[in-house]
Amino acid sequence: MASALHIGIAGLGNVGAGVVKILAQNADLVARRAGRPIVVTAVSARDRNRDRGISLDGIAWVDDAAELATRDDVDVVVELIGGSDGPALTLARRTLGAAKPLVTANKAMLAHHGLELAQMAEAADLPLKYEAAVAGGIPVIKGISEGSAANRITRVYGLMNGTCNYILSRMEAEGLGFAEVLADAQALGFAEADPSFDIDGIDTAHKLSILAALAFGAALDFAGVACTGIRAIESADIAQAAALGFRIKLVGLAEAEDGRLFQRVHPALVPMAHPVATTMGSLNALVVEGDFVGRLFFQGRGAGEGPTASAVVADLVDIARGDVRPPFVMPVADLAALPRADAAGRRGRYYLRLNVADRAGVLAELTAALRDCGVSIESLVQRGTSSSGDAMVVMVTHEAREADVVDSLARMAASPSVVGQPVMMHILDF
Amino acid sequence: MASALHIGIAGLGNVGAGVVKILAQNADLVARRAGRPIVVTAVSARDRNRDRGISLDGIAWVDDAAELATRDDVDVVVELIGGSDGPALTLARRTLGAAKPLVTANKAMLAHHGLELAQMAEAADLPLKYEAAVAGGIPVIKGISEGSAANRITRVYGLMNGTCNYILSRMEAEGLGFAEVLADAQALGFAEADPSFDIDGIDTAHKLSILAALAFGAALDFAGVACTGIRAIESADIAQAAALGFRIKLVGLAEAEDGRLFQRVHPALVPMAHPVATTMGSLNALVVEGDFVGRLFFQGRGAGEGPTASAVVADLVDIARGDVRPPFVMPVADLAALPRADAAGRRGRYYLRLNVADRAGVLAELTAALRDCGVSIESLVQRGTSSSGDAMVVMVTHEAREADVVDSLARMAASPSVVGQPVMMHILDF
Repeated sequence: MASALHIGIAGLGNVGAGVVKILAQNADLVARRAGRPIVVTAVSARDRNRDRGISLDGIAWVDDAAELATRDDVDVVVELIGGSDGPALTLARRTLGAAKPLVTANKAMLAHHGLELAQMAEAADLPLKYEAAVAGGIPVIKGISEGSAANRITRVYGLMNGTCNYILSRMEAEGLGFAEVLADAQALGFAEADPSFDIDGIDTAHKLSILAALAFGAALDFAGVACTGIRAIESADIAQAAALGFRIKLVGLAEAEDGRLFQRVHPALVPMAHPVATTMGSLNALVVEGDFVGRLFFQGRGAGEGPTASAVVADLVDIARGDVRPPFVMPVADLAALPRADAAGRRGRYYLRLNVADRAGVLAELTAALRDCGVSIESLVQRGTSSSGDAMVVMVTHEAREADVVDSLARMAASPSVVGQPVMMHILDF
Repeated sequence: MASALHIGIAGLGNVGAGVVKILAQNADLVARRAGRPIVVTAVSARDRNRDRGISLDGIAWVDDAAELATRDDVDVVVELIGGSDGPALTLARRTLGAAKPLVTANKAMLAHHGLELAQMAEAADLPLKYEAAVAGGIPVIKGISEGSAANRITRVYGLMNGTCNYILSRMEAEGLGFAEVLADAQALGFAEADPSFDIDGIDTAHKLSILAALAFGAALDFAGVACTGIRAIESADIAQAAALGFRIKLVGLAEAEDGRLFQRVHPALVPMAHPVATTMGSLNALVVEGDFVGRLFFQGRGAGEGPTASAVVADLVDIARGDVRPPFVMPVADLAALPRADAAGRRGRYYLRLNVADRAGVLAELTAALRDCGVSIESLVQRGTSSSGDAMVVMVTHEAREADVVDSLARMAASPSVVGQPVMMHILDF
C-alpha cells in the first residue's frame, strides 16, 4: 500500500471531532478504499483542553491554524473553522498558496470567495473539495458534478437547512407557533443562539449559490439569491396548507433558463406526495433535474457530527486516490456570468394569507384587488379566529404572473381592513 | 483543451442510441466537464439499417463488436450488448486485454464475471466502470463507492427493477391482477416478452450482488442471493397490506453482520411513510446505511434511454478526467469471501396469507400451528371471497424467528383446509 496521506485539521467542533473519530474507528476500511492510510498528524482549535471524546495522542497541536498550511507533516488541510472570512479564509488561501489540497465544509466562505479559491486551486492543479458544505452527508456535490455530468441541468432545488426543516416539522406535528418551537430548538441545541443565518435563509442561500454554479456552469452569484426565511409562517399557514394538500418547506431553488440564472430561497407549498414534502425533521433533500436523467432525488442527514464528517472523509479518499478536477467542474474562466432572471415574469400558483378585520365588504375589497391585477382565484377560505375579532383569509391563485400577484398583494395590504403583513408563498408545481 | 477521447460503442439499442444522442446534443457541455471532447468514432450493432433517430455520419460501422477492442481509433469501449456471456463477455475481455478502459451497463455479466474482469482491469491499472448497471440514472455506484467511502456500511436495499415496481404500482392503482397487468405491460413495451428475469427477481439479484460487493468489501456472490419474485402476489395482498399501512415492493436487501453476508430479493411490506414505499411506477430507489452518515436515500429513473445513457456518459467523463480506481473500490484480492448468513435465525415481522376452505375449525387449526412453532400473531383478518366458496386469512406476526414462521407455514400448508400455496412476506421494519 502507498504511503500515508497526512491530514491537518483546523477546527475541532463536532465535525472536526467526527473526522478524527472516523479516521480512527474506520482506519483500516478507509485505507483500503483510499489505497493508502489517511492519518491526522496535526490539529488546531481554540481550546486545547476541551473534552471532545477523541484521543489526540500522537497528533501535533498547533495554536495558529494558518500554520497547518506550511507544516511538513501535513499533506492536506481540512478547514472546519467556519465563517466567510477571517482565519478560515486566511488558512484556505495559505493552504492553496503552499500547493496543498484543501477540504472545507465552509459554505459561507465558498459562497463569498469560492471562485477566487477555485482559481488558486486550478492554477496549481490542486484539489479543492467541499462535499460537506452542502447537505452534510448526502453526496450531492458529487451527484451533480460527476453523477449528472452528461446532462444539461435545468433545475436544482431542495431542503438544505435542517434547523428550518426541524422547526417547520415540529410546528406541524405539535401545532405550535414559530417562536415557541424556535426557543425550544435553541434550548435543545438544534438551533443557534443567533438563529438568523438559518431561519432567514442565508445558510440555504450560501449552499444554493454553490449548487447553482456547479449545476449550470455559472459563475457563483451569492448576492443574486433572493432570500425569504420562515419567521412569518404561522401555525395557521401550516394547517391551511395541509388542508389544501401541501406542506410548507423552506426551499432553495435555482433554475437556468434562456441564459439567465434564477436563485431563490423561500418558504413554499410542496404537494404532500412530493418526496421533498415527505422529508421531515432535520433531514435534507435535494432534487436535480437533467435533460436526459430526468429527476434525481437525494435525501439524508444534512448536519451533525457523523454525516458531515463522512462527507469530509469522502473528499479525503478522493484526494488520496489522486482525483483532481476543477472545483466547479469546469475552469472558473469557463463559468458563464449569467445575468439574473427577473422574477416578475415567472408564472405559478401562489398561496396568500391575510389577517383581516371581520366586517362587511372585506372580501369584496380583496377579490376586487385580485381581479384588477388579473389574478384569478382557485380556492378561498375565510375563518374567524378565536383569539381576536379578526378573520383569516387564505387564497390559492390559479397560475398567474408573479408580478401581478405581488401587485395585488400590495393593494390588499394597503387596505385598512387588512391587519399586519400579508403572507405570499409559492406553490411548487414540479 | 486536451485531445478528444474516442469511444467505440457495442450495441445500439435504446441505451446505445441514447449515448450517441447525449454526446451529440450536449457535446460542448460534456467536453467542458470532461476537460476534453468525448467523441464516438465506431459502433457495432446487429442491424445497420434500423432507424434509431440518431445520425451515425462519420462514425465507423464495425460488424464484429469484438473488433472495437483493437481499433486504433477507439480509446474506450462501451459495452451495451447485454447477456452474461457470449459476445458481451468476449468484448469485455478483449477490451481490457488490449489495455483499454471499459464502460458497461451489463449487470448480468458483472454478477457472473465481475471479479475476473475487475482483476484484469486492476492488473493493467485500467478503469472498468458500470454506473449504468444498477438503478439506471441514479448515481448509486458512485454514491456507495465514493460518497459513502468513510462508512462501515451495514445495509443496502431498495427497488432496482422498474418493471416490477410498475406492475405492483398498477395492480394497486387499478385493483388489477398480476397476470392482467403483466400482459398489458408487455403490450406497452414496459415488460419483456420473456419477463422472467424481471419478475422472478433475477435482474434485481444481479444488481444487488454488485452493490453488496461494493458496500461491504465482499467478494461478489451472485449465487448467494436468495430470490423470490412477484408472481405469487395477488391484488388481495396489496389491498390487505394497504389496510395494514404497508405497500408491497420487490426489495433487494443486503446486509453484512458478524462477518457474514445476507443477500435476498423478495416482495416485502414497506411502511407507507418509508421513502421506498412512496417510490411509484417505474422509479428506482436505493437506501444505504452507514455507521457515520446514517441513512442515505436515492431515487430516480432506473431504466430507459435517457437515464441509463446519462450514467454511461458520467462514467466516460470520469475516464476522460483520468480517474482510475479498483472497480470494486478495493483490489479484488482484498475483497473478503464472506460466508453466507443463515436466514433461519433472522428475526422480524411477517405477513402471511392463506386461502382456506370456509368451514368450521380452520382458524383453530391455523392458529394452533403458529402457537406450536412459537409464533405469536399481531393481527388477523379473515374474509370470505366472492369468487369461490373459499376464505382468505391474512395474518401479521409479532417479531419472530424466520425459521419458526417458515415451519408454521409448512404445517399450515399441509392442512387439507388450505387451498393452494400460502404466501409469506417480510415486513421492512427499518
